Amino acid sequence: MPRYKATISYDGTEFYGWQVQPGKRTVQLEMEKVVNKMAKDPTEHIRVQGSGRTDARVHAKGQVVHFDLPFDIPNEAVRKGLSTMLPYDIGIKSVEKVDESFHAQFSAHNKTYLYRLSTTEFIDPFKRNYTGHWHRRIDTSLMQQAIGDYVGEHDWLSFVASGFQQKTTVRTVYSAKMWEKPEEDEIWFEFSGNGFLYNQIRIMVGVLLEIGNGSRPVDDIQRLFAVKDRQQARFTAPAQGLYLMSVDY
Amino acid sequence: MPRYKATISYDGTEFYGWQVQPGKRTVQLEMEKVVNKMAKDPTEHIRVQGSGRTDARVHAKGQVVHFDLPFDIPNEAVRKGLSTMLPYDIGIKSVEKVDESFHAQFSAHNKTYLYRLSTTEFIDPFKRNYTGHWHRRIDTSLMQQAIGDYVGEHDWLSFVASGFQQKTTVRTVYSAKMWEKPEEDEIWFEFSGNGFLYNQIRIMVGVLLEIGNGSRPVDDIQRLFAVKDRQQARFTAPAQGLYLMSVDY
Repeated sequence: MPRYKATISYDGTEFYGWQVQPGKRTVQLEMEKVVNKMAKDPTEHIRVQGSGRTDARVHAKGQVVHFDLPFDIPNEAVRKGLSTMLPYDIGIKSVEKVDESFHAQFSAHNKTYLYRLSTTEFIDPFKRNYTGHWHRRIDTSLMQQAIGDYVGEHDWLSFVASGFQQKTTVRTVYSAKMWEKPEEDEIWFEFSGNGFLYNQIRIMVGVLLEIGNGSRPVDDIQRLFAVKDRQQARFTAPAQGLYLMSVDY
Repeated sequence: MPRYKATISYDGTEFYGWQVQPGKRTVQLEMEKVVNKMAKDPTEHIRVQGSGRTDARVHAKGQVVHFDLPFDIPNEAVRKGLSTMLPYDIGIKSVEKVDESFHAQFSAHNKTYLYRLSTTEFIDPFKRNYTGHWHRRIDTSLMQQAIGDYVGEHDWLSFVASGFQQKTTVRTVYSAKMWEKPEEDEIWFEFSGNGFLYNQIRIMVGVLLEIGNGSRPVDDIQRLFAVKDRQQARFTAPAQGLYLMSVDY
């Protein structure tokens, strides 16, 4: 069974996230439908493995998945075949045959996420599904001072939503950047790391916003790492501003 | 009853167009709900008059409407009040009190529409509701040669969908332009005129695309004006690429 790696994008608006859930429309469900239709083998259900989950309404511009096909066909044939069958809110950016040791989740060593925040008084109708929205005053220079504290290996227990299942909450963030996009009335945040916990990035953005509006001190991130308390950071920036941009192997 | 003019934008994806229709979610319906909620007068239903209809899934970045309120309040209070109550897919760009002789439809003398066409092989998931899509080869230089033929006063009978109700199909197009946006894999078309018939712009784009792919000669627009036959131009570019950009008074 040759293994294929595919890089895909999806508009998360109409999905209950990546992972298959009974009765819900998910990206994994739609991907498995078309991969199995292509494989035409009713005796075996082929799984499509993602690099990790994304939540309901979260977008991807570079999610990576793998799956095994019962035959060996050219990369381009797989890409075109799947693209033709998929619903319009999922796109296949590239397909390549990989060694069977490749695993979309376990082989990943770096993931990059973007968070788009819109800062207009009222949300632009065309951005309602594609950015978070913050209309109160914020001092971005405070956020710029604080954001570097995220970089490094930390225990992220204060930054994880309840319901997480991982054994350890230690992860390493390689880079944490933000910049203003004044022509679009947006602030963009970009985080790279070896893995992120459930809701971690949305809570990281939430803490930065609370620093920016003065409800947390500028050095509060360090305190949150120290206290290891999931109750201390409850504001989770909305899902629709988050994009999984790339996964490196 | 002071009259207010409002410039609004909306993402047409989840609307059955502008005009109130029984049992359908339309922009006019949502606008009338909030205007009447603001007016708080259960004895009279206030109408919201638009500059004209837009079809299901067509967008607006500068639709203009008028309505009469039973009291005189500042423009900004109207803008904020309506913005707070409206669903997220409609936005109020500006509000100004106008003379009671102002009429959003009858006072308009120029309307500008944009059509966005995406030319990638498969549609980008994030553009599926925001651009038309054309993946076959087209020669844009042929379209550039032809597009100027649209300018001027013409009888547009060959460019109107069945179901139109206007007495005359004569309209004047003031400008017709197109340009490529290579960094976004799109072609943009912009048309201004004193009024457009039902589906007229989408048929104009459709004829241009058929000229671009060689299935119509480059001078076919002149022939279509001459034959005055609604059966000769049947390809209507999809609604989701069309934007009402501005209305001039």
